[in-house]
Amino acid sequence: MISEQRIQELNHSLQDDHQFRFNFLAEWLDRRGIAVQEIIDQVAAFQVAIPSWALGTGGTRFGRFPAGGEPRNLEEKIEDIGLLHRLNRSSDSISLHIPWDIPKDVPALQQLLAENSLTIDSVNSNTFQDQPDQPFSYKFGSLCHTDASVRNLAIQHNIDCINYGKALDAKTLTVWLADGSNFPGQQHFRRAYQRTAESLASIYESMPADWTMLIEYKPYEPHFYSMVIPDWGTSYSLCQYLGQNAQVLVDLGHHLPNTNIEQIVGRLLHFGRLGGFHFNGSMYGDDDLTTGSIKPYQFFLIFNELVDGMTDPAVKNPSLAWMIDASHNTKDPLEDLLQSVQSILTTYTKALLVNRVALSQAQEGNDVVVAEELLKDAFQTDVRPLVAEAMRQSGGALDPIAAYRAAHIREGLIQKRGKLSIATGL
Amino acid sequence: MISEQRIQELNHSLQDDHQFRFNFLAEWLDRRGIAVQEIIDQVAAFQVAIPSWALGTGGTRFGRFPAGGEPRNLEEKIEDIGLLHRLNRSSDSISLHIPWDIPKDVPALQQLLAENSLTIDSVNSNTFQDQPDQPFSYKFGSLCHTDASVRNLAIQHNIDCINYGKALDAKTLTVWLADGSNFPGQQHFRRAYQRTAESLASIYESMPADWTMLIEYKPYEPHFYSMVIPDWGTSYSLCQYLGQNAQVLVDLGHHLPNTNIEQIVGRLLHFGRLGGFHFNGSMYGDDDLTTGSIKPYQFFLIFNELVDGMTDPAVKNPSLAWMIDASHNTKDPLEDLLQSVQSILTTYTKALLVNRVALSQAQEGNDVVVAEELLKDAFQTDVRPLVAEAMRQSGGALDPIAAYRAAHIREGLIQKRGKLSIATGL
Amino acid sequence: MISEQRIQELNHSLQDDHQFRFNFLAEWLDRRGIAVQEIIDQVAAFQVAIPSWALGTGGTRFGRFPAGGEPRNLEEKIEDIGLLHRLNRSSDSISLHIPWDIPKDVPALQQLLAENSLTIDSVNSNTFQDQPDQPFSYKFGSLCHTDASVRNLAIQHNIDCINYGKALDAKTLTVWLADGSNFPGQQHFRRAYQRTAESLASIYESMPADWTMLIEYKPYEPHFYSMVIPDWGTSYSLCQYLGQNAQVLVDLGHHLPNTNIEQIVGRLLHFGRLGGFHFNGSMYGDDDLTTGSIKPYQFFLIFNELVDGMTDPAVKNPSLAWMIDASHNTKDPLEDLLQSVQSILTTYTKALLVNRVALSQAQEGNDVVVAEELLKDAFQTDVRPLVAEAMRQSGGALDPIAAYRAAHIREGLIQKRGKLSIATGL
Amino acid sequence: MISEQRIQELNHSLQDDHQFRFNFLAEWLDRRGIAVQEIIDQVAAFQVAIPSWALGTGGTRFGRFPAGGEPRNLEEKIEDIGLLHRLNRSSDSISLHIPWDIPKDVPALQQLLAENSLTIDSVNSNTFQDQPDQPFSYKFGSLCHTDASVRNLAIQHNIDCINYGKALDAKTLTVWLADGSNFPGQQHFRRAYQRTAESLASIYESMPADWTMLIEYKPYEPHFYSMVIPDWGTSYSLCQYLGQNAQVLVDLGHHLPNTNIEQIVGRLLHFGRLGGFHFNGSMYGDDDLTTGSIKPYQFFLIFNELVDGMTDPAVKNPSLAWMIDASHNTKDPLEDLLQSVQSILTTYTKALLVNRVALSQAQEGNDVVVAEELLKDAFQTDVRPLVAEAMRQSGGALDPIAAYRAAHIREGLIQKRGKLSIATGL
Repeated sequence: MISEQRIQELNHSLQDDHQFRFNFLAEWLDRRGIAVQEIIDQVAAFQVAIPSWALGTGGTRFGRFPAGGEPRNLEEKIEDIGLLHRLNRSSDSISLHIPWDIPKDVPALQQLLAENSLTIDSVNSNTFQDQPDQPFSYKFGSLCHTDASVRNLAIQHNIDCINYGKALDAKTLTVWLADGSNFPGQQHFRRAYQRTAESLASIYESMPADWTMLIEYKPYEPHFYSMVIPDWGTSYSLCQYLGQNAQVLVDLGHHLPNTNIEQIVGRLLHFGRLGGFHFNGSMYGDDDLTTGSIKPYQFFLIFNELVDGMTDPAVKNPSLAWMIDASHNTKDPLEDLLQSVQSILTTYTKALLVNRVALSQAQEGNDVVVAEELLKDAFQTDVRPLVAEAMRQSGGALDPIAAYRAAHIREGLIQKRGKLSIATGL
Repeated sequence: MISEQRIQELNHSLQDDHQFRFNFLAEWLDRRGIAVQEIIDQVAAFQVAIPSWALGTGGTRFGRFPAGGEPRNLEEKIEDIGLLHRLNRSSDSISLHIPWDIPKDVPALQQLLAENSLTIDSVNSNTFQDQPDQPFSYKFGSLCHTDASVRNLAIQHNIDCINYGKALDAKTLTVWLADGSNFPGQQHFRRAYQRTAESLASIYESMPADWTMLIEYKPYEPHFYSMVIPDWGTSYSLCQYLGQNAQVLVDLGHHLPNTNIEQIVGRLLHFGRLGGFHFNGSMYGDDDLTTGSIKPYQFFLIFNELVDGMTDPAVKNPSLAWMIDASHNTKDPLEDLLQSVQSILTTYTKALLVNRVALSQAQEGNDVVVAEELLKDAFQTDVRPLVAEAMRQSGGALDPIAAYRAAHIREGLIQKRGKLSIATGL
Repeated sequence: MISEQRIQELNHSLQDDHQFRFNFLAEWLDRRGIAVQEIIDQVAAFQVAIPSWALGTGGTRFGRFPAGGEPRNLEEKIEDIGLLHRLNRSSDSISLHIPWDIPKDVPALQQLLAENSLTIDSVNSNTFQDQPDQPFSYKFGSLCHTDASVRNLAIQHNIDCINYGKALDAKTLTVWLADGSNFPGQQHFRRAYQRTAESLASIYESMPADWTMLIEYKPYEPHFYSMVIPDWGTSYSLCQYLGQNAQVLVDLGHHLPNTNIEQIVGRLLHFGRLGGFHFNGSMYGDDDLTTGSIKPYQFFLIFNELVDGMTDPAVKNPSLAWMIDASHNTKDPLEDLLQSVQSILTTYTKALLVNRVALSQAQEGNDVVVAEELLKDAFQTDVRPLVAEAMRQSGGALDPIAAYRAAHIREGLIQKRGKLSIATGL
Repeated sequence: MISEQRIQELNHSLQDDHQFRFNFLAEWLDRRGIAVQEIIDQVAAFQVAIPSWALGTGGTRFGRFPAGGEPRNLEEKIEDIGLLHRLNRSSDSISLHIPWDIPKDVPALQQLLAENSLTIDSVNSNTFQDQPDQPFSYKFGSLCHTDASVRNLAIQHNIDCINYGKALDAKTLTVWLADGSNFPGQQHFRRAYQRTAESLASIYESMPADWTMLIEYKPYEPHFYSMVIPDWGTSYSLCQYLGQNAQVLVDLGHHLPNTNIEQIVGRLLHFGRLGGFHFNGSMYGDDDLTTGSIKPYQFFLIFNELVDGMTDPAVKNPSLAWMIDASHNTKDPLEDLLQSVQSILTTYTKALLVNRVALSQAQEGNDVVVAEELLKDAFQTDVRPLVAEAMRQSGGALDPIAAYRAAHIREGLIQKRGKLSIATGL
């Protein structure tokens, strides 16, 4: 849809302004002793996985308003993500959803992935919906179900996911468990937890030794009284039960109102149990908005913990899985994803700028104002030229969304796939 | 599905226990100067409308697990509600949803309604979904839309709803407006409000003089940044703008965390602007659970305000519309509705028992403990025998859910309509 | 202030009504196979500790409106609690707050306690305020402080508390840590946690082997950005770090909006790490209202978990510490405490009535409606006659608050201690 | 404490860096068609009132950790605010709290104010605390009280406040009513509202015709069940009842979790009923943190509404009162206030940069991405050089906090006023 050459042409017209802004910022940071190119290299190296399930227009229980041109199969999804990656050079992998995206012709897929410089980063199981041919229903739970037949079905589905992933060189199984209850009394809390722990152990044992199981938590929705894994404490306890290759996954929208998420991030890093992120934006709950669209400062504070933990030799935490998990109800899904990646990179860049030596001194001396101002200084710095420069140096677009629009990509996709195409899984 | 005679037979086996419990309670209340039969008569007279859209299994954006036997058209929906009413004698009307339940053969419908002792209580417009043949999309709003063509379409739809309602002797138009925005900047708050006010005025002018327009509010979902009518204050201001026949509708799930809903109820009664209720249960948001299933004491405090306001001559508020609006994702929808009505009647009964003279004295004298204990005394009284007696005297079942199960109604519905029938609108 | 004989006289006038209500309930429960006297015995045996710091009028940062007659020293506090216990026979112990209630003449205190049939149940440390003679300030934390001098001061204070407790035969140290931060950047989350863990370990090692350390959590206040121990997951991880005698304490007001507290209770019981409760009522946050005054059904669901866990042989959890922790800003503190105990006992009684065999069957079979109705049936049963009977059989008042008022106790206390007496600690 | 000359000296050392950053930004904005000096002039003209009650260390109900050097009387408070204004040239007025700061020698005060280039912007009444000599208590309310004697006392106090204000040329009475209830049943909602409305009317009638009454709302604290004026809808209805000179005051910390405050701001501007702001920062409730310290993007969106409304000729809203209302529990109060003003000006500047023509076009065309990006572009622009330049041009410090620290002002205040001085009102 858009060639590298076309991207370079589009960059050309923006180059003057970019250079002007970048030169200023590089000089200003240099005056303050910051190694600008090192920052750029780190930003360029940061890659965020794109979910295969979020390339079409999402919706709520009240409705869906599709934009057209949605990818009709896994191959078209790979094409879409390849396009994103060509634009921003920062989306080099895919989170695969099973059964919406069961790989059929593996060698062909591997070739297509290679052509697009993409890999499969993780497989995500789905035991929150019944599939047409399913012998037992997940209506009352999957891994937690009171009936062993249902639990075994869900365990086997997760093992199938691992096998699909192995064929495509993934190393991560992400488990989001929708199990829960809508009414007091419906579920016995302790037994539901224990059944879940044992089901997860069966899956864990089937996982190759170099794989990681990511366990997500969520306080409510689709159940509105209780969820079996509602909070980080429950995820963490399950990881302890399972073993070293189980880690907690943090989805930014899965918290009760007013939760200090950055502290949870620091806590899990301290325990060596932070496995990865589902990035999205949230105002009320699991709103699945564009990452960074509602509370960009909190998002910065989260990245501040991440950078702090990842650079602290005292922290024994494995490397993290970065994934977007959002629902594009209103915007063009591809524009929404470009915005999210941009927001992630911008925020990561700001966190890299924090003067950690000075911060640590202020914290030790309880100089609250200075400590806070150090964070605010990094946050208020307009780092967009650094992100643009990282993309430029990697061969991407200075302004990916502008390039996407200039190339009339959505129009092309609609022409090719039709106005009424529906992405698998929607 | 169940005859009145069968209901009497089922009552027979419960009669001894009922009489034992009722006799005690009647005697105990009588000792305290309460006119028991008057309470029973008030409970028997209390009727709650059933929504035509909630007779099938509901769901979330993550999935739906249908129970089978769902009504396939409006006629079958009327049958289902007739069944409920036969069981509890407290559900004598229907909230109609357009376009899911457009009446076709009006005389036949009127006859069916009469056979089931039912009426149509209100019509509910839907401008939150696009219908297949729709010339313009509601993706970016309806009554608030920036484009007059869309607004006119939505206005006309509401006028159509009024006309459908007129044919069936309804007197109420309920407007729930899903209009809102998902991102900062998307919508100009002031202009969106003004366009909405003017669109509502166009509808209001088309409404017969003896009709009421109920304006619902909701803080979020399906939009997750802003809603055009997020709170009671906005609904109220729109009612002031429109005229005396516009009233605020309170849906119990449409509030931010920790909202004191009973105070809003008192406030609107004071202003003479409380139009009606959408009953349901909520733990986190618009969870649409069974009424009274999560916070029964708050529900009692709401009814305490209602009874207080409805019996206070100082309050100039028109009579209220009582409707259920829930989503039956987990339970058999008909059992869920029976539970909700039971919960509403039980709670209303408790509110009727409050000693308002003593309460007023305690309030005037700031005797906080006594005032609170007066409410708690009514709440803690086990009034279920009064509700059962009201149903018995009206010809209904002493225990509607037990009767529903004893008569194997769901099994019969599945046999008749099939395991895979889908209710219109789902 | 009130003799046992006077209590009996006051009971006499209420006896007829009580007997009428009790006879009905006993008969009704008997018909359903419930051993009524066993329930009564369990209720009579249930004892709730009264906090020494909550006998005077509490307040907010905006002001305090004292009622008069507050206890001026520990001896008068013991008198007040002795009075409560005489009235309800359910408050046989005291939670002691250090340094507000440092015991001076231990033998005299022991005699006073014995005369009032009271014991000291726990000691509570205070490192959230600076005392006049304190060499270092807790302004920036205590056990988490960056400065070892401050940490050592706080550790020593906790050891002092243990020693005060040992002298009075207490076996529990309750640690509520107000440590936290008001601004992003102020505190290094991981280091603050680690320092806290190590400080707690120093205290834990100084604790006798038959003591329990209870670790409280709280999401905010007095700090409004982060608290070092904000949630049950953090408390739990600290208990794991410390050893078997460390347990989590749940304060009902210390949760974010919409938290499912009953599930946390079940979780901690499953882990064998639930140490005890601080009972109070909450609408918005740590409101410290009368227990059960706002969400009585949630309170019942919590007791349902407790009774379920305490009667399940699979649960390996030590016996629990029950304490009230409230602030009596509006009501007479002694009336408020009587209401709270009454509410706790009523709720416990309801939880004892739950038909656990039937509930377990419904849960196993995913009969959501029946499972819920079993809980609602117990909750809706008016068990007040059982609680009154338990008090009567133990020699207490049928209606403790009525007896308190009839005996004009507050007036007597004001006469004795003055209108302007201030309880130590306020 | 610090002379204008010393400020210039301190600026000198920062001038090079400032000029470098300012030159870049001015050039960049100029390229985009923005009139930089006009922006600077608007920023320089923006003035924020400082509350007389927030110059000492604040606290919570759990304690207070004073920093020393607190102003001991109104004269010293004026000195402190004069100092702030000398540093930032943006704090030219004072919100006065009665009875904490009753003016005694009016001519002397007026001279002191003039010497410090200050004015009195508003008077704030206090009916949430009992004063030592008060004949009736506000324990159960003030303007809403059931007893007319208490209401009259509170009305008279407000009239006294107006008279104090008139003597000092203030034109605004701010009414924050702490009236509410802690328990269900305590207060009759409708009557409490009506009494409040009538009490406010008595005060309103005593107010000069060129005065404004600002009515604040707050959902909870100091009462934890209900507040008489909990939300903007209630404030608004009272303003309608009173007349054109009554306006709603928005305190940023006075909302339920997840409230979209910027929409309320737009709503009130649309109604012409937005009177002013109490600026502070909030994570959980009325945390009273530094303005902009927790949710700077939401704060920007609020200013975006303000600038949009203030520049739209369709909006008929009087000019607004800008005031800080925070509690400095952790930081040096004067540094905290300097940070807050800096944050307000920075945010205002960003809102001034929004391209409103383009935004309006994107909104009309429902181009969600472009609309959002326009806001994000303004927010991400590092406008600190513009704010610094505005201060420089006005004779203030380029970096007020650095200047405050360089001049060792806190040390000087402690030396002069003592380590243990306590600000009146604390």
